[in-house]
Amino acid sequence: MDLKKYKHEAAYSYTLGMAPTLELIQYHREAIDKVYVHPDYVPRDESYNIFEVCSSQDLPWEVNKKVFDRLSAKENVYVIGVFSKYSAPVAADQPHIVLVNPSNSGNLGTIIRTGVGFGLKNLAIIRPAVDPYDPKTIRSSMGALFHINLSFFASFQEYQEQFFAHRIYSFMLKGQKSLRELHPPFPPLFSLVFGNEATGLPDCFLDYGESIIIRHSHAIDSLNLSIAFGIAAHTFSQCE
Amino acid sequence: MDLKKYKHEAAYSYTLGMAPTLELIQYHREAIDKVYVHPDYVPRDESYNIFEVCSSQDLPWEVNKKVFDRLSAKENVYVIGVFSKYSAPVAADQPHIVLVNPSNSGNLGTIIRTGVGFGLKNLAIIRPAVDPYDPKTIRSSMGALFHINLSFFASFQEYQEQFFAHRIYSFMLKGQKSLRELHPPFPPLFSLVFGNEATGLPDCFLDYGESIIIRHSHAIDSLNLSIAFGIAAHTFSQCE
Repeated sequence: MDLKKYKHEAAYSYTLGMAPTLELIQYHREAIDKVYVHPDYVPRDESYNIFEVCSSQDLPWEVNKKVFDRLSAKENVYVIGVFSKYSAPVAADQPHIVLVNPSNSGNLGTIIRTGVGFGLKNLAIIRPAVDPYDPKTIRSSMGALFHINLSFFASFQEYQEQFFAHRIYSFMLKGQKSLRELHPPFPPLFSLVFGNEATGLPDCFLDYGESIIIRHSHAIDSLNLSIAFGIAAHTFSQCE
Repeated sequence: MDLKKYKHEAAYSYTLGMAPTLELIQYHREAIDKVYVHPDYVPRDESYNIFEVCSSQDLPWEVNKKVFDRLSAKENVYVIGVFSKYSAPVAADQPHIVLVNPSNSGNLGTIIRTGVGFGLKNLAIIRPAVDPYDPKTIRSSMGALFHINLSFFASFQEYQEQFFAHRIYSFMLKGQKSLRELHPPFPPLFSLVFGNEATGLPDCFLDYGESIIIRHSHAIDSLNLSIAFGIAAHTFSQCE
């Protein structure tokens, strides 16, 4: 394979760095094409040795500097895992995160990582949206992308037609209820819905399920999207 | 002044973009040296006109493309505000955020913005630490840096000797109490203490005040620092 810098339309993507590569191997070993190792790679104490991991998993690997020069802008990347994009659609019997038109890969990665931390492993993305398979997103998720189920929808209506049993909680500055008014137990099926970083959710979301506001002072325009998500996910989390 | 790319040791810094520059003008007009405007600047509808703002505030401005070429890597920056670093030490009669050795300017900026949103406007930083006056930090704070009081300490002991009346809440993976067990009312003077992104707080913090854990699943190593802070700040916030 002539490995090129990531493009959204490509059928493959790659992990940059040891931690996300190990998550990839653990959760989607079947999707891996090859593991590339930088000639300067040295296993750290108390860490996994990538050669041993590849051997034990019967994974092809190659020491190759050029791949790193081409794919990685950061200096501290010594392991790259190339994988085919796989299908792992969101489960109907689990709560969901729904992101409407997310536009920042750092936020998306942080949301995926935080969601996994709070047991929310099913993510629906309403397009247009930043690409969750972008190596930047994978990196900021710290490999948590490989833990989750993920589906794309052309519109929120399309999502809702498929998952009509989920109770909708739309997070927006115009929300009718404060997050502090919500207390467990929560319904087993719910969707935490968040809008775009710059624009939030459009007003029509006031009419879908409950609209929720995370109150903050007027000294800032809004919370960062990933912060708002983290606060909401913590509230809905079952982790005591 | 021969304006150079930001260095930590410089006595001045600058804002990149309209939003943080407006916050600078609103909160620390006295510290401003000059406002630079890109020749391609066009006021947006419903937004402030930087020339009118400068005139009304009697602020010197200059249209100058070279300054932008030198200071800004981003294309969408049309306004830069140069200011002298000012002193605004943390207040003894307010709750504090304490960051021990923060190392990521994006996280620091997001924490400052989130703190302001939840009414926490006094930040103590234990060095070594990333520079809050770095234009990258200012930008990720979206100008919220100009709302806060800020002091530096060489050690947590030095901080605590000065602010012995504050109740310490140390957030750490080994924390003895779950954040969910904490409920208002909180003491009027408290310090929310967070460690470095990679290492967290050292074990000695188990002995200062209360040690708190934000519980999450074992599927992730830890929450992102700014997410953990956001969840904690929301819990302690007075915003209903």
